[in-house]
Amino acid sequence: MVASEIRALFAVASRPEIVSLAGGSPFVSALPLDAVGDMVARLIASQGQDALQYCAAQGDLRLREQICEVMSLEGVVAHPDEVVVTVGSQQALDLITRIFVDPGDVVLAEAPSYVGALGAFAAYQAEVVHVPMDESGLIPEALSAAIERVTAEGRTIKFLYTVPSFHNPAGVTLAESRRAEVLRVCERAGLLVIEDNPYGLLGFEGTPLRPLRARTRDGVVYLGSFSKTIAAGLRVGWAVAPAAVRDKLVLAAESAVLCPASFAQLTVREYLSTQPWREQIKTFRELYRERRDAMLQALTAMMPSGCAWTTPAGGFFVWLRLPEGIDAKAMLPRAVSSRVAYVPGTGFYADGSGAGHARLCYSLPSPDQISEGVRRLAGVVDAELTLREEFGPVLRRHG
Amino acid sequence: MVASEIRALFAVASRPEIVSLAGGSPFVSALPLDAVGDMVARLIASQGQDALQYCAAQGDLRLREQICEVMSLEGVVAHPDEVVVTVGSQQALDLITRIFVDPGDVVLAEAPSYVGALGAFAAYQAEVVHVPMDESGLIPEALSAAIERVTAEGRTIKFLYTVPSFHNPAGVTLAESRRAEVLRVCERAGLLVIEDNPYGLLGFEGTPLRPLRARTRDGVVYLGSFSKTIAAGLRVGWAVAPAAVRDKLVLAAESAVLCPASFAQLTVREYLSTQPWREQIKTFRELYRERRDAMLQALTAMMPSGCAWTTPAGGFFVWLRLPEGIDAKAMLPRAVSSRVAYVPGTGFYADGSGAGHARLCYSLPSPDQISEGVRRLAGVVDAELTLREEFGPVLRRHG
Repeated sequence: MVASEIRALFAVASRPEIVSLAGGSPFVSALPLDAVGDMVARLIASQGQDALQYCAAQGDLRLREQICEVMSLEGVVAHPDEVVVTVGSQQALDLITRIFVDPGDVVLAEAPSYVGALGAFAAYQAEVVHVPMDESGLIPEALSAAIERVTAEGRTIKFLYTVPSFHNPAGVTLAESRRAEVLRVCERAGLLVIEDNPYGLLGFEGTPLRPLRARTRDGVVYLGSFSKTIAAGLRVGWAVAPAAVRDKLVLAAESAVLCPASFAQLTVREYLSTQPWREQIKTFRELYRERRDAMLQALTAMMPSGCAWTTPAGGFFVWLRLPEGIDAKAMLPRAVSSRVAYVPGTGFYADGSGAGHARLCYSLPSPDQISEGVRRLAGVVDAELTLREEFGPVLRRHG
Repeated sequence: MVASEIRALFAVASRPEIVSLAGGSPFVSALPLDAVGDMVARLIASQGQDALQYCAAQGDLRLREQICEVMSLEGVVAHPDEVVVTVGSQQALDLITRIFVDPGDVVLAEAPSYVGALGAFAAYQAEVVHVPMDESGLIPEALSAAIERVTAEGRTIKFLYTVPSFHNPAGVTLAESRRAEVLRVCERAGLLVIEDNPYGLLGFEGTPLRPLRARTRDGVVYLGSFSKTIAAGLRVGWAVAPAAVRDKLVLAAESAVLCPASFAQLTVREYLSTQPWREQIKTFRELYRERRDAMLQALTAMMPSGCAWTTPAGGFFVWLRLPEGIDAKAMLPRAVSSRVAYVPGTGFYADGSGAGHARLCYSLPSPDQISEGVRRLAGVVDAELTLREEFGPVLRRHG
């Protein structure tokens, strides 16, 4: 299941009668839309000659300063010179891969990993080697072993791609005790780390763990985004990179799109200057926590035995393991008939794994819709289990 | 002189004391900024849940329908299914090159050619072979000869990249009599044409010539942009491509940026639905004609003999040939000291040619500023000529 199939699924899942747990979209309706509208009107009327014009390829300087302020909330100390504004952090992923990867090079990524990253890696013919995770995130020993094995095979590893906090799709977070160890393993191997942190400010419990980039300036390229803290439709993300990588990124970005949109950049700049953005993030956090709780409660109350799922401490996603022998992709058409949608686990692996898993997203539907969606999904899984009991495992292959 | 050097030049050229004929930026202040601001405010207040959300990778359907209406003004008949919305037409150029070009492949382009296109071609290690132009644009016989020569060398040509109307930087337009012939030559050679038409609606005289894509549906990928007809800071462009190429473009776009910004797309959609956009294009056209006239008058009145320049029938640019032996890049620091800036011709060649040329842009400065800028430039060229007379040609090499 490649990115385009997932988009096709999203199109089906957007039908009103379907509860979509597939998406991954932020609940942008929670923004103060009237206030944001007025703010943009003032911006265009007073600074239209800049907001509607080309800008520098690296992005607006004041916005890059503000991005550093936003990152400081998580303990990341960076200089605006190190920041490159991108068309969402997807563009940063694309450009980083373009810069570093030659066809056949290996990229290490968690198992499972973010589908958009896998798409970018595939576009440049990288070979993804997945590294196991558990409830505490990436397993340092497994990372070490993967590096050793791949290196012994004579293959070149270009970087580790990781989403340490509130993982998409796995819903887990790299434990504090493992963060230094992951960095040590990579440093020892001379391996660059691409840290993708779109959900870092959307933690539900206590103080969020400091990103890897907050622990070292070297060896980490950090990717951030306003897609979940402000709005995805702006397509404003960023990369923080050491000077040599930063220079390559700016050149690649210029060749790819000339410059990021001033219209979106100055909108974010104005939003961060004039709107209560910290309080809005708190609003988002509480909203998503409530939805996460609704999903976990519904899963506990309704899913048949044999299922298991992660308990996200932030972000948008629960990773569901289906009972032995049930294939999430084969089950999807029946789920859609029962008016619920999810993303089958195979979308999050480059190697065909993940058939027994599904990603459930709780960010967009209301708590009631989430409960209803899980109820429908539980029914579908129940029916699969009944079929399995009655007709035996052979049917599954034709499922 | 690569794209990044040109950007550095633009930074210097943006100092207030300098008349910049370097840019290439549209005069967005001519937009009705208050009305556009109010329009965006209403859009966000009433449709914020869409305008601030992710969308499909191909772009918004209604916008793609409107794009077809815009193209019909130039006689291009296309279906919304054939349209892919991109982050400016630069992204379309980048993705087209990504799809078609393997390192070492040849791309044919006019001599000179658009610097952003040359940047994209270089990023994918294409080898650009320039094809001569004259006052009537690309010379079909020269195109034919180039195809023959490159093919005889055993090299693979992937496409012809051309800006037929109001060329950047050359300021010339492919004559009506040559348009069919260029298409015939390419069809005979089985060569794809990438037609870049950002200025098509900004013609100053009579009915603009129909684009190549208006003459055939096959064998042409057409690139359009709202950067010059609405605003560059939105970064909304598009490609029109046959289904097979369209599918590849959508996949590549998704991998590069997930989707174009809904914020900018819905702003353009709303602008085309509610604002007098045809009248606004007419306003731009008259404004740029007045500036072109100011530049041509000033050049005629003030430039020393030995200079020659093109007479653009639309678009933003005049291509200036300096007197024999004067190097535009070497002269640039002295021009900047004299408070005028331009882009040296070498930026528009992949092969180091163009030293005796400069691109002059008239879209952003006022007619008075243009006259003053040309006056300063004429003074700089005069001083170069005097130096040359007094010290002989040897000095030029150290210029």
